[in-house]
Amino acid sequence: MPELRRDPVVGYWTIVSTERGRRPVEYRPEGMSEETECPFCEGQESKTTPEIATVRKPGTAPNGPGWEVRVVPSKTPMLGSDRDIARFGEGIYDLMNGVGRHEILIENPMHCHDLDEMTLPHLENVIAVYRDRINQMESDPRLKYALLFKNHGQMIRSRQTIRHSRSQLIGMPIIPKRVKEELVAVKNYFDRRERCVFCDILRQESSEGLRLVYQNNSFFAFCPFASRTPFEIWILPKRHSADFGRTDPADFRPFAEALKSCLAKIRVLLGDPPFNFILHTAPYRHKKKEAYWKTIEEDYHWYLLISPRLTHLAGFEWGTGIHINPTAPEDAALLLRETNTEGSE
Amino acid sequence: MPELRRDPVVGYWTIVSTERGRRPVEYRPEGMSEETECPFCEGQESKTTPEIATVRKPGTAPNGPGWEVRVVPSKTPMLGSDRDIARFGEGIYDLMNGVGRHEILIENPMHCHDLDEMTLPHLENVIAVYRDRINQMESDPRLKYALLFKNHGQMIRSRQTIRHSRSQLIGMPIIPKRVKEELVAVKNYFDRRERCVFCDILRQESSEGLRLVYQNNSFFAFCPFASRTPFEIWILPKRHSADFGRTDPADFRPFAEALKSCLAKIRVLLGDPPFNFILHTAPYRHKKKEAYWKTIEEDYHWYLLISPRLTHLAGFEWGTGIHINPTAPEDAALLLRETNTEGSE
Repeated sequence: MPELRRDPVVGYWTIVSTERGRRPVEYRPEGMSEETECPFCEGQESKTTPEIATVRKPGTAPNGPGWEVRVVPSKTPMLGSDRDIARFGEGIYDLMNGVGRHEILIENPMHCHDLDEMTLPHLENVIAVYRDRINQMESDPRLKYALLFKNHGQMIRSRQTIRHSRSQLIGMPIIPKRVKEELVAVKNYFDRRERCVFCDILRQESSEGLRLVYQNNSFFAFCPFASRTPFEIWILPKRHSADFGRTDPADFRPFAEALKSCLAKIRVLLGDPPFNFILHTAPYRHKKKEAYWKTIEEDYHWYLLISPRLTHLAGFEWGTGIHINPTAPEDAALLLRETNTEGSE
Repeated sequence: MPELRRDPVVGYWTIVSTERGRRPVEYRPEGMSEETECPFCEGQESKTTPEIATVRKPGTAPNGPGWEVRVVPSKTPMLGSDRDIARFGEGIYDLMNGVGRHEILIENPMHCHDLDEMTLPHLENVIAVYRDRINQMESDPRLKYALLFKNHGQMIRSRQTIRHSRSQLIGMPIIPKRVKEELVAVKNYFDRRERCVFCDILRQESSEGLRLVYQNNSFFAFCPFASRTPFEIWILPKRHSADFGRTDPADFRPFAEALKSCLAKIRVLLGDPPFNFILHTAPYRHKKKEAYWKTIEEDYHWYLLISPRLTHLAGFEWGTGIHINPTAPEDAALLLRETNTEGSE
């Protein structure tokens, strides 16, 4: 089982694979193995762990063909165990066993068919599955946060390079540093102004229009003012809402439209680059007191961050935490806004 | 001039190139230009900006051949301007002009001749130049911190892929987030225990020996307990010392030995992978009150972090700040410790 280790200086956590670590040769390009058959395609269901949720055609049997969206536990979980949380120390060091859950959300039965190429009704199903799985994980009392994210394209951490559209959901026994920082920051902002910082951003962005990429009645997509990567996009609900897990099903369609449009624009303008998306949403409620939740509900605002991976992090970024973005967000937004995706659909 | 922009939510800074931004095609592999002639080789001095410091053979003229180490201002500075700092707001957003300094420290006159391949006397000169340039920049009253780092190998941010050994020094008008976090953390540790956390780490690591990579009388190199990347190494002075800029010249030789040995081990074991190194040292004094400096001198401890780039960051790391390290630091240290670098010198 992986182990969570805490840096004794700054206090960041690292997940360390202690069981069967990768050897040096496995990091060399020639040491990377590639799977030839995709385990996520329809008809290959026996190659994955048994499914735990699906959208299926009526009359089809579990773990066989006939599904549209399929969720399976990861075969190689980053965190995963049914055990209780164990925390201990080794001298000045702190560690924790790698308790958690790791699910793979396979977004359609076809190979090489990406989110922006799917129909809107299909995308609505995908979004409903995102929401359901996040809410489902909340019932595990050990978990404090679940991160939904997607790695698209070749720049991925693992050796796996299968090109089949899927996202990942990881439930964690801690609220990660990045999330905590955001929660503390929005609370401070609200305490001083009695306003949600994201609602303020939305107001300024929609009145200026400089960094707008796409909008409909319910969602607003733009390149953020301090974008850390070129062509970064945030998609926010226009109505204040802290928790993606509480999204009204009536919003699935406009969210699907926004997501499809943004991803298609990135594909057309940038030539199908690798990208990540990350859902920023509130932590689980059951771990928090009612009063705490009241404040999160007021001061937080969920959003989806899409980040094309066009640049690499180098020493400067690692050493400072300051990113260098060679394309101004205003230029990126103008190009994305003007990108016509009709031909690509 | 680049612009420093502050994220209105969490408050991180991004450097945005507003002058002549990169266009989408320039991020595509086919759009990357490669320079054919290296401007950092001996005899090519006219291809760089005029030198501002050198180690030269007696009787040779500036900006001509005959140097061993040569420092030039960057042609394309990440931060750079002689102007005063200007801070302003745009609605809810904060920005700053990109005041700073950016120097290239060319570490030897030969192409493709890396630090671990240089002689120890030459490396001592390189280290002396690191120290001198850091101290030199301190005289600029606008600067609060200078970051020394190296990008080695192909995984670099810019399009430049020249393979000529050099490091970079960037002076900044702010103390970057990553550095601030470390300074706050070590102070808290010291306040509670009256001990430097790095000295505590050294004590535990040297008594256990599990993660040791290399040591001599003055320096200790090991794979940290919560290494964020596989085969990460920290080199620390054994004697408590907060400020690399105050290093005793008597320590240049043992530091050169430690650096050469660690880099050679990485090359031999991992096949010359891309790596970064980053010097973690105290901020400039002139900006701080005497009392503040007293505490930094007690609670901080400089070190060099060497990080081979064998894995990519993906959605999980971006979304959580938690890194996944597929090789346990104990395994990495054992392999590095046992790697014989005699043949490679």
